[in-house]
Amino acid sequence: MSKINLEMIARELNLSVATVSKALNDSHEISSKTKKRVLDKAKELNYQANPLASALRNKKTHTIAVVFPEIDNNFFALAIKGVEHIAFAKGYHLLIYPTNENYQREKAILNLLQNGRVDGIMISLSTETKDIKHIEHLIEEGLPVVLFDRVNYTVQAPKVITDDFESAYLATKHLINVGCKKIAFLSSSAHLYINKKRLDGYKKALYDNHINVEKSLIVQCTNNDIENQNIISKALLENPPEAIIASIEKLIVPCLRTCKDLHLNIPHDIKLIGYSNSHIDEFLKPSLSAIVQPAFEIGKEAASILLQLIDKKYKKSISENVILPSKICVRESTSIS
Amino acid sequence: MSKINLEMIARELNLSVATVSKALNDSHEISSKTKKRVLDKAKELNYQANPLASALRNKKTHTIAVVFPEIDNNFFALAIKGVEHIAFAKGYHLLIYPTNENYQREKAILNLLQNGRVDGIMISLSTETKDIKHIEHLIEEGLPVVLFDRVNYTVQAPKVITDDFESAYLATKHLINVGCKKIAFLSSSAHLYINKKRLDGYKKALYDNHINVEKSLIVQCTNNDIENQNIISKALLENPPEAIIASIEKLIVPCLRTCKDLHLNIPHDIKLIGYSNSHIDEFLKPSLSAIVQPAFEIGKEAASILLQLIDKKYKKSISENVILPSKICVRESTSIS
Repeated sequence: MSKINLEMIARELNLSVATVSKALNDSHEISSKTKKRVLDKAKELNYQANPLASALRNKKTHTIAVVFPEIDNNFFALAIKGVEHIAFAKGYHLLIYPTNENYQREKAILNLLQNGRVDGIMISLSTETKDIKHIEHLIEEGLPVVLFDRVNYTVQAPKVITDDFESAYLATKHLINVGCKKIAFLSSSAHLYINKKRLDGYKKALYDNHINVEKSLIVQCTNNDIENQNIISKALLENPPEAIIASIEKLIVPCLRTCKDLHLNIPHDIKLIGYSNSHIDEFLKPSLSAIVQPAFEIGKEAASILLQLIDKKYKKSISENVILPSKICVRESTSIS
Repeated sequence: MSKINLEMIARELNLSVATVSKALNDSHEISSKTKKRVLDKAKELNYQANPLASALRNKKTHTIAVVFPEIDNNFFALAIKGVEHIAFAKGYHLLIYPTNENYQREKAILNLLQNGRVDGIMISLSTETKDIKHIEHLIEEGLPVVLFDRVNYTVQAPKVITDDFESAYLATKHLINVGCKKIAFLSSSAHLYINKKRLDGYKKALYDNHINVEKSLIVQCTNNDIENQNIISKALLENPPEAIIASIEKLIVPCLRTCKDLHLNIPHDIKLIGYSNSHIDEFLKPSLSAIVQPAFEIGKEAASILLQLIDKKYKKSISENVILPSKICVRESTSIS
């Protein structure tokens, strides 16, 4: 804690503490001459108002929180970089709460945040989250909330997402165009909306191209890399596909490892495309075809909307979604072999 | 803000607000029977104490900050995951402040944190940071500080680091063992201690193996990927090395890109080893030999020491460094071609 306080400024200027306090709070009771003396002295002594006292007085903490699945993930690291970009520019502090894909932890975190620690919250749901009462409760309490990427459409809050349906549709269509009909879809979490949308995009592309959806090609994965290797390995052996769509970044490494273990050459024996935000994809063997999400922009947009909500300056309907497009980078892993 | 406050609990129980407040603060003036009634009612109503009011009263925010170079970096993402692991377990909130390798920003952040917003700070220096007065100032003010990874040895605070000298020595020795004598060292920042230590390890390994240090093989890079490609390209053309050590993760992609542009085959034409914490290194073309730092453990250890300092329970000397070893993973990029 700083040693400079109101008493010291008052003593130095031969003023009362009350006068110094009022001057620093720009009270109309104090002359501009005195205000200037106090401000100059405060600056000279490097006086910093206690942020907690100011926050209590003004009911504003200048702090926002981001609650999200995991930090060692290129998508979320970039999204948080985007959030931080806006927060820093606007003088906000940023608390981070990774949930580690755990619903109970997500709930406990939101419970901690409900009473005055932050001015607003950005949330991206864990794979386990089905019930959203913990989020609705925050909104009922009047706390500004923005959902991003992994959203739930029934929550009455702005949502910043990417075009999950369209990007999965285009990725599937690309695989069909390079000659694949048996396309496996590696699914993250059955109840997450991004998963549903991506799965719908995949199914629609198959349907539009007169290909039947095979249930055994829709492979439900978990949060555990080792488990996922076993699941993927079993799926590839039981009903061998010609191509794989990894619907989240976390599934790419288990996928590459399984193909290596099974001596499946990509793209000769099997093609692969994945949602990925890694800048190293082009240097993989083979270089990876990827659906690249606008992670940084999603974070920036979510933070920007949250600050508008906090300042009561958000003009759009809170039920309006902001959709930022992903792009598909075609590389060797889906080339015609 | 929650609508449940002390007044409501008092009204429901027909007690005074003062009694409720004292009961919640476990005052000896209140009977255990009344305390139980108040606590039960508080729980029933889901009352949450205002964290700012508690923080002001107890002079403890239960919040710590981590100030570090950049978030979209596998090393720092994992280190922060380690920090968060400890913080969450101990009931601390975590503020993050990426400096984007900018000294002025690092200074501005620390200035914001000096007066009561946090109970303690973890810092990993930006590449630009030479002067450390902004850190010394915090310590003089009595704020607990722990440095990690990019430390400065003159700061009087605990430091959690990896064995920078030894790991660079071993990486250089490995390159010598596979037949290289002309080894380029891609340097991050001339004044960063991790860079000095790594460079010293490189030089010592050359010296021990009777190889002269060539100045033109020590290549000073910047914070900019495009600039780095030009710098590396120029260095590789002017005095072509047989091998490269990328002394920080950020330099690996510009290095791979430059080799590709110059049609240099790794490891046939040139070998490459880099400090890296990416789980995808083994799937690169060629798979990347890497010095893997204990990033998660560094974060955990730094946070654990910080919380001990905050609780005044840190037993070791604050000038003692904690050194966690890195390990070298040898893969195709340094194999004998």
